[in-house]
Amino acid sequence: MNRQDIFKHIKSKKSFLCVGLDTDPLRIPQHLNKLEDPVFEFNKRIIDATHSYAIAYKPNLAFYEAQGAKGWESLQKTIDYIPKECFTIADAKRADIGNTSNLYARAFFENMDVDAITISPYMGKDSVEPFLKYKGKWAILLAATSNPGHFDFQDLMTEKDSEKLYEVVLKKSRDWGTSNNMMYVVGATRVESLITVRTMVPHHFLLIPGVGAQGGSLEQVCKYGMNKECGLLVNSSRGIIYAGDGEDFDKKAAEEARKIQLEMETHLQKLL
Amino acid sequence: MNRQDIFKHIKSKKSFLCVGLDTDPLRIPQHLNKLEDPVFEFNKRIIDATHSYAIAYKPNLAFYEAQGAKGWESLQKTIDYIPKECFTIADAKRADIGNTSNLYARAFFENMDVDAITISPYMGKDSVEPFLKYKGKWAILLAATSNPGHFDFQDLMTEKDSEKLYEVVLKKSRDWGTSNNMMYVVGATRVESLITVRTMVPHHFLLIPGVGAQGGSLEQVCKYGMNKECGLLVNSSRGIIYAGDGEDFDKKAAEEARKIQLEMETHLQKLL
Repeated sequence: MNRQDIFKHIKSKKSFLCVGLDTDPLRIPQHLNKLEDPVFEFNKRIIDATHSYAIAYKPNLAFYEAQGAKGWESLQKTIDYIPKECFTIADAKRADIGNTSNLYARAFFENMDVDAITISPYMGKDSVEPFLKYKGKWAILLAATSNPGHFDFQDLMTEKDSEKLYEVVLKKSRDWGTSNNMMYVVGATRVESLITVRTMVPHHFLLIPGVGAQGGSLEQVCKYGMNKECGLLVNSSRGIIYAGDGEDFDKKAAEEARKIQLEMETHLQKLL
Repeated sequence: MNRQDIFKHIKSKKSFLCVGLDTDPLRIPQHLNKLEDPVFEFNKRIIDATHSYAIAYKPNLAFYEAQGAKGWESLQKTIDYIPKECFTIADAKRADIGNTSNLYARAFFENMDVDAITISPYMGKDSVEPFLKYKGKWAILLAATSNPGHFDFQDLMTEKDSEKLYEVVLKKSRDWGTSNNMMYVVGATRVESLITVRTMVPHHFLLIPGVGAQGGSLEQVCKYGMNKECGLLVNSSRGIIYAGDGEDFDKKAAEEARKIQLEMETHLQKLL
């Protein structure tokens, strides 16, 4: 899937919502637990209920790995079930030495067949490049995350032009790929960083977690992050998938997704 | 397993060798491919052949994830098969926001039941802390890796006391845990960094990849990295597990492991 395809999809659904499938078996509504694969059944119903309002789905790998081999099966079934027009992101935060990153790329792009994977940049260029060799696939680099720990290293001032570490990450890595195979993660609560990031990578898509439960404002994100092709995938996980906990949880999820989609539609007006 | 247990094990086997179980299905000797789980069968024979000379085993997750759910099963069977006195490391290079790191910790420490996991530090303190809450388990932080990409960010000079990023990672993170629940990864080829690291964390164990095939010298590593309790886990992967490719591959692996153990024994003399 290329940038144009994503923008086309955004225009057709009037949405740039990504639904985070952070499915915790302990939080699944009771009545699903008697089915063979409750995690997949939960995801299936969430996808059915939200795909009119969402253009992307992002399962976080930790939730599936915590279930071992069974979790990987639930995850694969989920990926296979997501409608083909939707953008799929394995939120895995991987990266290793070149040879090993090659294997991760094979695992996620060839076998699991997702469109994108999130990457931790600490090990540098050769740990990221293997993910950029797949046509139509994407590496999404952590830049400025929304968790408290971002202060520890990402915001450190470097002697290189007095830039913060995450700015150096952007400046170096933007030359490793293009705006057609790389995106960046920027937390919704970090408006100041978002302004900086948008200046440094005007054409790249940004994956923005942290709207809703974590306190980020969609309005601010759009004001400072949107570009001519939208350039934003805004993620909501818990706020949508756990909106209800009864038999109508999927209906509640759809209502939440619809609410966000409507707000997104107003912000998209100028691009439609 | 605590630091004392590891040192005791080192003294009893006169070895601080870690065998990297980077098992690629394409490189497994032909005759194993007719068995039900060739990856596990390969690992089983490697473990049987080398455990007299090795005190630790380190499967790299990428090799197993590339096989999907089946790979996770091979991995779990492998972990279960490793003799209990050996230290087991999931080389996974994980980390996420606090809540999500909690799940990774559950996946690896409770379900898979390894002793340690490797961690990428980019997301800071709250992404690492969940791994430090398990008594007897270890977080092994990437500090100065041996791949070419280490120049990109790890070696960046920061304005904080004119230290390189990896030095700031050490300085900050050493206060998050203790030398009884944290280790650091330092590439064998980075002797200068090793000297710096040893000054900054004199009592911590270091996990050292890059000896052998990648060009690092065991002598140099011991000269600059060894402390009173050895403080080193030196890893070799391909050099041992692919030493042979015929039916006697396990015998060849044992010979390689034995060779390294003997060299280690000479370096350990002063501590025994």
